[in-house]
Amino acid sequence: MNEFDFINKYLSSKKTSSKFSLKYKDDVGYANNNIFSTDTICEGVHFHRDDEPFLVAKKLIRVNVSDIIAKGINPKFCLLNLSLGKNVDDVWINNFMKGIDSDLNFFKLNLIGGDTTKTLHNSVLSLTIFGDLKGKKFIKRSSAKKNHFLYVTGTIGDSALGLYCRKNPNIKIPKKHTDYLKNRYLLPEPRTELTNFINKNASSSTDISDGLYSDLKNICTTSNLGAEIYFAKIPLSIAAQRIIKENSQLKEKIINGGDDYEILFTGPNGLDKKKNVTKIGKMTGDNKINLIDFDDSISLEGYKHEI
Amino acid sequence: MNEFDFINKYLSSKKTSSKFSLKYKDDVGYANNNIFSTDTICEGVHFHRDDEPFLVAKKLIRVNVSDIIAKGINPKFCLLNLSLGKNVDDVWINNFMKGIDSDLNFFKLNLIGGDTTKTLHNSVLSLTIFGDLKGKKFIKRSSAKKNHFLYVTGTIGDSALGLYCRKNPNIKIPKKHTDYLKNRYLLPEPRTELTNFINKNASSSTDISDGLYSDLKNICTTSNLGAEIYFAKIPLSIAAQRIIKENSQLKEKIINGGDDYEILFTGPNGLDKKKNVTKIGKMTGDNKINLIDFDDSISLEGYKHEI
Repeated sequence: MNEFDFINKYLSSKKTSSKFSLKYKDDVGYANNNIFSTDTICEGVHFHRDDEPFLVAKKLIRVNVSDIIAKGINPKFCLLNLSLGKNVDDVWINNFMKGIDSDLNFFKLNLIGGDTTKTLHNSVLSLTIFGDLKGKKFIKRSSAKKNHFLYVTGTIGDSALGLYCRKNPNIKIPKKHTDYLKNRYLLPEPRTELTNFINKNASSSTDISDGLYSDLKNICTTSNLGAEIYFAKIPLSIAAQRIIKENSQLKEKIINGGDDYEILFTGPNGLDKKKNVTKIGKMTGDNKINLIDFDDSISLEGYKHEI
Repeated sequence: MNEFDFINKYLSSKKTSSKFSLKYKDDVGYANNNIFSTDTICEGVHFHRDDEPFLVAKKLIRVNVSDIIAKGINPKFCLLNLSLGKNVDDVWINNFMKGIDSDLNFFKLNLIGGDTTKTLHNSVLSLTIFGDLKGKKFIKRSSAKKNHFLYVTGTIGDSALGLYCRKNPNIKIPKKHTDYLKNRYLLPEPRTELTNFINKNASSSTDISDGLYSDLKNICTTSNLGAEIYFAKIPLSIAAQRIIKENSQLKEKIINGGDDYEILFTGPNGLDKKKNVTKIGKMTGDNKINLIDFDDSISLEGYKHEI
């Protein structure tokens, strides 16, 4: 069962599904004029024993920051749940907490509480994050408009390609490119500089954590629309272009790869005048996603978070 | 390292320790006119593989509800992080979610979001809960007054004795008593009927999750006061009285045992007129806890949450 199935089966249909949950159609919840997100990372699944704890801490904060800023809201407060496994020692905690401190300062976040426990095996780390609306609206996933254009920030697929490089150390591209991609996997950089721009201009928005295709599908399904996107227009880093040239099957990572933490949003024409924003297609009235310029032989199932 | 050491080492002393964290002196955080708490329970540590998932779910909600109502505030919203281990199947999830639904209804809570992930080994379950102040104050742990009296709700020690019964199935007391104690361990019953009473009357308050001695020590330390309590006045259930008669060493569980989720609070004289509230001592000006009527040979280290 993946997370979407879980939500459909246990949450959306229940009377406990209140207006505050946005019917679980979004990555965030809304209560008392605040927007909330929470994400968990598990050792052995989302991070690994030999990862730098300093970077693990930053990743934990950043995957959550990403969810909120994609709504056009700056996060301000967080709570931290650390369930520490048997591989964790004082040195690990010390470096992990340095990463937490560093990103609390960087994103101007207040850590207001948390819980620390021990597990018998691996570590499980959760952060809950929120920011207040202060009279502003927030940009939902479900509010895309027909004929609005589709935009992405940054470059797409780097993180999944970085993970691929990590698992395939013998790949024949220059080290500077593999280092770039691996770093994109290890350290997401939420587009905080675009928060207000998204809030002001986007009709719908989500971060790209499950993969471009899967997150686009979420916008389409919840907005009851379809989309067409041009593969050739999807912005790729130089490193990504280089690795795809080497192995064209890796094109699939651009579409299906997760963990980019860029923003996918819809809006009127012309929003790509902003640096770091690229138009990749538009919303349509039929309920399907049409991917133009793409090799038909490559699967488009979308990355699914198994639970 | 236990949780108190962790907080001292990594949190209280840092500049990231803001007023919103209440300097980590309380079980809750305060932000945007809301009071927050979060607690995690780990399989193999706080619950076990063969525990009823329906009850595990309720325990997860109730340990969090307990924190907020001890502040005299009703919780209203929550987020659920499920990191599900390899022992979890669809039947388990189904029964777990029935327990969640049941307690969301019972406590009038709105589930506004969450995250579901998979772990490689055991399950780790977190809930973050909050309620709004609506112009009311909330009762801190650090605001006890000298010469105010100490009160507890319900009966103390049942949960730790229940865990003892579970681990020692051959104990010679009638089954109705062991069943009562084991049930108190499995299913906390937060004193929601006393939320407004606490808000109106208490000068300081905490739930008893770490054990009476340890939680009293927290009130004393954060309030810069001492306390004297009378062991003979601590309210015990009939089952607890019976098991202690059988084994007097178990008296220690009354003082050190955790997981009661009753409320320990301070206030002026006369608050024990309320049903289910018992006066057990008073706050003093010196920085020590004086436990009167107690057997000196029994350790009073206090239950510590190892992390």
